[in-house]
Amino acid sequence: MNKFEENTLSSQTIFQGRVIDLIVEEVQLPDGKTSNREIVKHPGAVAIIPITAEGKIILVEQFRKALERSIIEIPAGKLEKGEQPEHTAIRELEEETGYNCKSLTHLISFYTSPGFADEIIHLYIAEGLTKKQDKLDLDEDEFVEVMEVSLEEAVQLVKEQKIYDAKTAYAIQYLQMKRVVEQR
Amino acid sequence: MNKFEENTLSSQTIFQGRVIDLIVEEVQLPDGKTSNREIVKHPGAVAIIPITAEGKIILVEQFRKALERSIIEIPAGKLEKGEQPEHTAIRELEEETGYNCKSLTHLISFYTSPGFADEIIHLYIAEGLTKKQDKLDLDEDEFVEVMEVSLEEAVQLVKEQKIYDAKTAYAIQYLQMKRVVEQR
Repeated sequence: MNKFEENTLSSQTIFQGRVIDLIVEEVQLPDGKTSNREIVKHPGAVAIIPITAEGKIILVEQFRKALERSIIEIPAGKLEKGEQPEHTAIRELEEETGYNCKSLTHLISFYTSPGFADEIIHLYIAEGLTKKQDKLDLDEDEFVEVMEVSLEEAVQLVKEQKIYDAKTAYAIQYLQMKRVVEQR
Repeated sequence: MNKFEENTLSSQTIFQGRVIDLIVEEVQLPDGKTSNREIVKHPGAVAIIPITAEGKIILVEQFRKALERSIIEIPAGKLEKGEQPEHTAIRELEEETGYNCKSLTHLISFYTSPGFADEIIHLYIAEGLTKKQDKLDLDEDEFVEVMEVSLEEAVQLVKEQKIYDAKTAYAIQYLQMKRVVEQR
């Protein structure tokens, strides 16, 4: 598993933040030379594809400061310390959309930016949705607008670059493939 | 486009690195309160799905220090300053695999981690491959092993978590969908 392993010679913590930490490590390369690796530490996250009884997808629009624009994403949120991803998924779905789900199925997990970050996203499908509350239970610095769209509308949002992130693009492509397989 | 926009009150550059910069911004939230945003600046990247005449996919295995393990990915690389993504794609394909391509088609672009980073990946399909050189032209600190796999083998690598990143998972799912559509 560890082909071309790089051994850490020294490690310097540059920043410890609310969401991420930044570490710079001096490493020994497979050929014996040295190099530096800039590494962002992230607690990991979940993302949820919530499908309503009518077959619509629940999405959230929010402003992303890193991009200086708002984009439309599937609901997602960071793992809290020691929290099981399934619990995070149920919690974030309820907080961001007001829905509970009867069924939660793990679809895939993937690293988002292996070149510089250890962020992993665990992706789930949530079905059997029931509205628990109209008022959202968002974090203090979180502002989202919830929308329900058809698969066709979601595909259009990808084309218009309103859906513009990897996890949501993966989710929409998954639903497209599922539709094609079911229609065979 | 800028629903729930957050205005920057102050910006502090914490780190300027070889690959990423880290900035912390104090922002004014839509409700007038303030918060901090931790933002990783990245030059952006391309990733390429190289398909051989035999229908195999060319993948590269490399050690990812952020994950402390090696994973198998589609070829990818950072944009150099002022470089057009298409040029980066052609350059990186040749450097990492030794192949030139006759046809390069843009598939999708997406942000990888909009919660904390501005990294965007432009994803291309490369076809009409010809081997230009056997020796790879890698960066000084880059060590990769090239492999050619069938779609079935790639799907198995996803299941085994040897393929474990968003761009490669998206690419394999895209090829699976293409196969299903073609077989209808």
